[in-house]
Amino acid sequence: MRMTDILEKKKNGLPLTEAEIKHWIDGCMSGEIPDYQTAALLMAVYFRGMNSEETVALTAALAQSGERLDFSGLDFVADKHSTGGVGDKTTLVLLPLLGAAGVRVAKMSGRGLGHTGGTIDKLSCIPGFRTDLPRDVFARQVEELGIALTGQTPELAPADGKLYALRDVTATVDSLPLIASSVMSKKIAAGAQSIVLDVKTGSGAFFAGREKARELARLMVMIGNGLGRRTVALLTSMEQPLGYAVGNHIEVLEAIAALKGEGPHDLQELCLALGTEILLATGKETDPATARERLATLLAGGEALAMFRRFVAAQGGDPEVTDRPELLGVPAATRAVFAAEGGYISRLDARRVGEAAVMLGAGREKKGDAVDLTAGIKFHKKTGDFAEAGEQLADLFCSDPHRLKQAAAHLQSAFAFSREKPPAGPLILGRIA
Amino acid sequence: MRMTDILEKKKNGLPLTEAEIKHWIDGCMSGEIPDYQTAALLMAVYFRGMNSEETVALTAALAQSGERLDFSGLDFVADKHSTGGVGDKTTLVLLPLLGAAGVRVAKMSGRGLGHTGGTIDKLSCIPGFRTDLPRDVFARQVEELGIALTGQTPELAPADGKLYALRDVTATVDSLPLIASSVMSKKIAAGAQSIVLDVKTGSGAFFAGREKARELARLMVMIGNGLGRRTVALLTSMEQPLGYAVGNHIEVLEAIAALKGEGPHDLQELCLALGTEILLATGKETDPATARERLATLLAGGEALAMFRRFVAAQGGDPEVTDRPELLGVPAATRAVFAAEGGYISRLDARRVGEAAVMLGAGREKKGDAVDLTAGIKFHKKTGDFAEAGEQLADLFCSDPHRLKQAAAHLQSAFAFSREKPPAGPLILGRIA
Repeated sequence: MRMTDILEKKKNGLPLTEAEIKHWIDGCMSGEIPDYQTAALLMAVYFRGMNSEETVALTAALAQSGERLDFSGLDFVADKHSTGGVGDKTTLVLLPLLGAAGVRVAKMSGRGLGHTGGTIDKLSCIPGFRTDLPRDVFARQVEELGIALTGQTPELAPADGKLYALRDVTATVDSLPLIASSVMSKKIAAGAQSIVLDVKTGSGAFFAGREKARELARLMVMIGNGLGRRTVALLTSMEQPLGYAVGNHIEVLEAIAALKGEGPHDLQELCLALGTEILLATGKETDPATARERLATLLAGGEALAMFRRFVAAQGGDPEVTDRPELLGVPAATRAVFAAEGGYISRLDARRVGEAAVMLGAGREKKGDAVDLTAGIKFHKKTGDFAEAGEQLADLFCSDPHRLKQAAAHLQSAFAFSREKPPAGPLILGRIA
Repeated sequence: MRMTDILEKKKNGLPLTEAEIKHWIDGCMSGEIPDYQTAALLMAVYFRGMNSEETVALTAALAQSGERLDFSGLDFVADKHSTGGVGDKTTLVLLPLLGAAGVRVAKMSGRGLGHTGGTIDKLSCIPGFRTDLPRDVFARQVEELGIALTGQTPELAPADGKLYALRDVTATVDSLPLIASSVMSKKIAAGAQSIVLDVKTGSGAFFAGREKARELARLMVMIGNGLGRRTVALLTSMEQPLGYAVGNHIEVLEAIAALKGEGPHDLQELCLALGTEILLATGKETDPATARERLATLLAGGEALAMFRRFVAAQGGDPEVTDRPELLGVPAATRAVFAAEGGYISRLDARRVGEAAVMLGAGREKKGDAVDLTAGIKFHKKTGDFAEAGEQLADLFCSDPHRLKQAAAHLQSAFAFSREKPPAGPLILGRIA
């Protein structure tokens, strides 16, 4: 098998066989296939695409390139993945909620990048919390406590890491089959038998356009099911931030409030919807309404909060954070943002909000940048709310007062106003199974 | 300027600026831009193409990547380039013919590859003939004798060599702007003020399809004129071999016959047509009919042959080859090919002829292979001729008798017969200026 023949085939729009894709990925990892051939093939894939069989084969080859977790001895382990958003603290609520419902969840999370946040950064606010569990500790916690969370390790799907690095420098990131296989290869290697995907669309999402996001969801669901994992995706709106908090420590605070049954409506709604899918996928429930009711009861009854405390403790963190918010950090500087005009808020652009958060230091421009865990934004008004001119819209905070002014101006530009109350758009836009 | 931005632009179908193309080629040569980025860009160019300005800028950047010959002090130096064919010994006749007409020609030639032959291999049959003239010797011979020929040196347009090597392993050879800029960059660096191109089409040509060959001709003429060289192209037929001889020593013999006015009609016709273009392009003549007449007279009068002998001597070869054919080598083994059926030869497939010649050892499958200079094919019949069943069609020869049988069978498959005499197709299919 020659890489030039593989390149020629893909260039001419012919589908590659499973063996050819495996030859490529294995050769790429062993060094037998030089990076320039992989780079050329990535560009050819960008233009020619990949069909379902190719995309599944690529995902499998990436997943098989390194170590794999195996939970087949346990009664159904689930995983949840979000394509990334602004103010998305869903994992912090959903994981203990599912744990309280008796569902095992083995979750690998990432750090924030660009305008989107990352669960690992958020949990780092909790004193002592370990986000780098060794594989055996992680697996044991899944078995004993039921839920565990750790950062992505280079040992799982290392070919995906290598391929992504090449895509990053060859302008081939934005290819649907490459995106879908990249995400799913890590999920497959992480061993969960069921995968629930939160595919976001709207200004703060990776794909703002709904059709492209839906296509990505379809692809990922097809891959998951094709590789024997019960996979379902919800297409959800990321036009405005989820909840009222954007940042790190402030999102943990909001997640704790949600676990106490005092969270914002949209966050709770998303957690219940995703959680219901997981209860159905794992076979813990068969009726959606019953599943949802059970989760709502666990939230209201404090079982989810209790599981959060056990989870934090199991990972080395201080469970007292649920009662002592100051443990998560106290921002040194704050600044309020006021409405420049009166009216209904017709738009609160999630992307701009995310960018303002990065300006405050809550996120990173590029991998490896340091993050200010106390930086963030707390909203008082969101889309559909009415504000008088001069009324307070949000508070900004961070540890470096010099960052406040520019971020405030950018946040101001995220708001738009109208005379009429805008129609409330749905949070859940679709379900792909 | 960032290579990822350049990649993104081309990927999205936007034209690159001259500065961006220069940044790419310079960075590729300095190593600042890694090969994987160049490979990805080559694939993007394959899919998105390049407009005229980009193609000219790429050619200029390639030509400027190394040493350049400068003949601006001399009264017009011409160059001739063929895109490659079977039995194409035109340079061996045309160079001394133009020399006799007082036109300076500085010619860089290549070796044969695949089914097409190369002038350097052919001239290597002449004892003592040097095909690796140092730059100063080459330039001095152009000045003093008027004509000189040498192999391509890596010092001229080295970026083209590097880019071609990457194209070869990334399935991006067959891109018109990349082909045209590759050919023309070497011509531009070689310093001729006028370039005449013989762009072949038909089964034995790089582009069998006429429209693609015409487009290549258009592109190369546009580039040459865009970079200040008077450039013209003839589109010529390569459906069957040129002349009756295919190989190395046997093509030199046929070229010598042509220089004596005893050559095959098509070879003489092509030399006169290309020579006329060069006389017009260099301003030595203004009327095509007069130019052609002048060249025909120089052939008939022996002046071209005399110049060939001076040319051979100047390059260290033995000019006696014009009278002592055995000096060029004597094949050890021969085999005749006979007509399997009677009728008019309706087709003599140039590509299959070239492949049969490679089987005999006259050409090389891949760069660096050794060549049997005595291997070749001498035809007795070509397209349009009548042959009785069992009549001799061709003779094969080479130094290794074991190669004869397979080559004979392949050559047989190059012939097709019909009852009706096929119409004679034109040799010159078009002129692009």
